[in-house]
Amino acid sequence: MLQNIKLVIEYDGTNFHGWQTQARGQRTVQAEIEKVLKIIFKKKITLIGSGRTDSGAHARAQVANFHAQVRLPLPTLRTALNAHLPKDITVLSVAHVPENFHARFHAKSKTYRYAIYNASLRCSIERRVGFHYPYPLNLAAMRREAKALVGRHNFKSFQAVDSSRAGKNTLRTVKSLTIKKRGDWIFVDITANGFLYKMVRNIVGTLLEVGSGRLPKGSIKRILAKRDRTAAAKTVPAQGLTLMRVRY
Amino acid sequence: MLQNIKLVIEYDGTNFHGWQTQARGQRTVQAEIEKVLKIIFKKKITLIGSGRTDSGAHARAQVANFHAQVRLPLPTLRTALNAHLPKDITVLSVAHVPENFHARFHAKSKTYRYAIYNASLRCSIERRVGFHYPYPLNLAAMRREAKALVGRHNFKSFQAVDSSRAGKNTLRTVKSLTIKKRGDWIFVDITANGFLYKMVRNIVGTLLEVGSGRLPKGSIKRILAKRDRTAAAKTVPAQGLTLMRVRY
Repeated sequence: MLQNIKLVIEYDGTNFHGWQTQARGQRTVQAEIEKVLKIIFKKKITLIGSGRTDSGAHARAQVANFHAQVRLPLPTLRTALNAHLPKDITVLSVAHVPENFHARFHAKSKTYRYAIYNASLRCSIERRVGFHYPYPLNLAAMRREAKALVGRHNFKSFQAVDSSRAGKNTLRTVKSLTIKKRGDWIFVDITANGFLYKMVRNIVGTLLEVGSGRLPKGSIKRILAKRDRTAAAKTVPAQGLTLMRVRY
Repeated sequence: MLQNIKLVIEYDGTNFHGWQTQARGQRTVQAEIEKVLKIIFKKKITLIGSGRTDSGAHARAQVANFHAQVRLPLPTLRTALNAHLPKDITVLSVAHVPENFHARFHAKSKTYRYAIYNASLRCSIERRVGFHYPYPLNLAAMRREAKALVGRHNFKSFQAVDSSRAGKNTLRTVKSLTIKKRGDWIFVDITANGFLYKMVRNIVGTLLEVGSGRLPKGSIKRILAKRDRTAAAKTVPAQGLTLMRVRY
């Protein structure tokens, strides 16, 4: 009998071409884990992730599932996975889930964090987990404008156009968007029922234009209404982005 | 007229063979900065660091000085340095200092932090800035034993023997040693008037033996008295070590 196993996975995305296995054979998180599953189960196993993450983006708790005949106790399986995996991937937990559980289809919401290092000088030690933005930011303006994003909206203006991944249904519900300041760091935390391709990075790019004073009050509402990617600002780099949580 | 310029430097030591320029031409922080100084000043300039840091160890605030005829305003010099330097080095400040200031000879004390990630599972995202120690630790025992290290002592037992750098004078004064817990992280902060080669990493290795219960009460005092490296525990890895501050 095949069992359905759910993994919660942390990774440092710096040296990956994202989550999803690429035809071109580039290094991806999914491919690295599938390689290890093949070693452990002696057969090819397909891992279903909650969704892709961008090349260079990180995860504190990506979720994935796979079906296999598991003869090991789950803690032993976790140890075996981590022993075989490269150091930039860690399996945090391994659990049995109901047969029909599907990491992508059943995801109810996801939370992403975008980390901005907002100091005049760059930071070398933490450069891989944040985007350095050296200019002053008006957080109050950013928070005020961000309110227009919360709720059910057509996020077409924030979807990457340069992509074959562009979906037709661009309606999404942003459940919360908070902007926190911790020392020189600013964290933009966004929870939504789903995200369009590069949506978080396009939203943050636009919020930075608001914070720097280049976009006036009401801009985000106007950009949303245009349903046109060129209305929003440029995409911020992937290294600041971390998938924090997937809820089911 | 040559001016004496002091730099405060942050670096991610992951991809360096330490601070000091090696005869073998390996990538070092000093060599990278000297390369940039040569570009800016059109001549070879020797950078004097406060001291070496181990291969793989980091710095939040290494201090160095050099003599040159500086025709640029210092903020412009800082910008020029950072523009030319690789992203894993950042010059935090550039200042004029008296002619006789010497970053090594005049250092009064240094503070190092050793970061231990003390959770059963490793952490991928922060793996470059900490040492993963998965077993429970008795912090109270570690703090109690650490007291024996504070003050003026002969630290020969904690000096690397495998090194040509081994000094004859092994007396040092540890001004403070604190052990802080922050979530899954344990920080061992040590301030001393100077450090022997690998002294922090050997002290931390020994404190971990105390914390895990393998060394009884009074061990550190006994190890100090032996003045023999084999009495202490093994060296912990360099990636957990960060030079936090140099005082003059």
